[in-house]
Amino acid sequence: MTRWPLPEPMRAAFDEALRARDAGEVPIGAVVVKDGKIIAAAHNAPRTLCDPTAHAEVLAIRAAAAALEQERLDGCDLWVSLEPCAMCAGAIVHARIARVYYAAPDAKGGAVEHGARVFDQPTCLHRPEVYSGMGEGEAAEMLRTFFRERR
Amino acid sequence: MTRWPLPEPMRAAFDEALRARDAGEVPIGAVVVKDGKIIAAAHNAPRTLCDPTAHAEVLAIRAAAAALEQERLDGCDLWVSLEPCAMCAGAIVHARIARVYYAAPDAKGGAVEHGARVFDQPTCLHRPEVYSGMGEGEAAEMLRTFFRERR
Repeated sequence: MTRWPLPEPMRAAFDEALRARDAGEVPIGAVVVKDGKIIAAAHNAPRTLCDPTAHAEVLAIRAAAAALEQERLDGCDLWVSLEPCAMCAGAIVHARIARVYYAAPDAKGGAVEHGARVFDQPTCLHRPEVYSGMGEGEAAEMLRTFFRERR
Repeated sequence: MTRWPLPEPMRAAFDEALRARDAGEVPIGAVVVKDGKIIAAAHNAPRTLCDPTAHAEVLAIRAAAAALEQERLDGCDLWVSLEPCAMCAGAIVHARIARVYYAAPDAKGGAVEHGARVFDQPTCLHRPEVYSGMGEGEAAEMLRTFFRERR
């Protein structure tokens, strides 16, 4: 059997997640894509950076905005290995990200299809298109293995 | 008539909001307090910093965590001039802020008593105590004046 290959930005997000794991951080990675090109890549790093906001999505968004020298990322896409939490979903709204692609759902911490459902709020200022599920098995397995090994 | 004075941390948050205004940013300010001492103060600065996540709360939390060289702000309080949005409420959860004091409610962008109601979600990992309303007239007037003058 040949598995359908992951789109390259999701593969890059997974590579970032593995970098997080190697640094002892929860394995979650994200990239920002503009005009088909990855302009920022980051992984979860709250412990390493002593920064509770240092989730992969926030770091990737901040890096992309810095690279473009602008406050908003109009027309940019975010690819991330796990369903964004409320903080990251809010950051996606503020950045005006056009499309969000995430691999695994997160029933506990997610805020897109779970919990606060940030993009579904009537007051939500900007709603990205959202695509989920590609590579979800692999992304979930990275997390399961990480937490199993730390027990 | 003598108006009851604002608690000092809220006065400091308002001073930060005025600094934001003077920099052409939406006037919102925040401080983090630990053991009765302000350990971080910040104002809204997404334009200045080219960073869509640069809300007062996020910047104050990041500065406080950096100052304490730790990922979490257990036992710390956050004082902010406006009801936090979903991103900032999520950051407050991740930082394990003990108490949140905010001045004005924000029916459009707020996510504490409005919209995503982040702390009320059954999946919310950490619920800070929340106190609101002190100085709300002054905080709201700063925002109204700012937007009136920019129209």
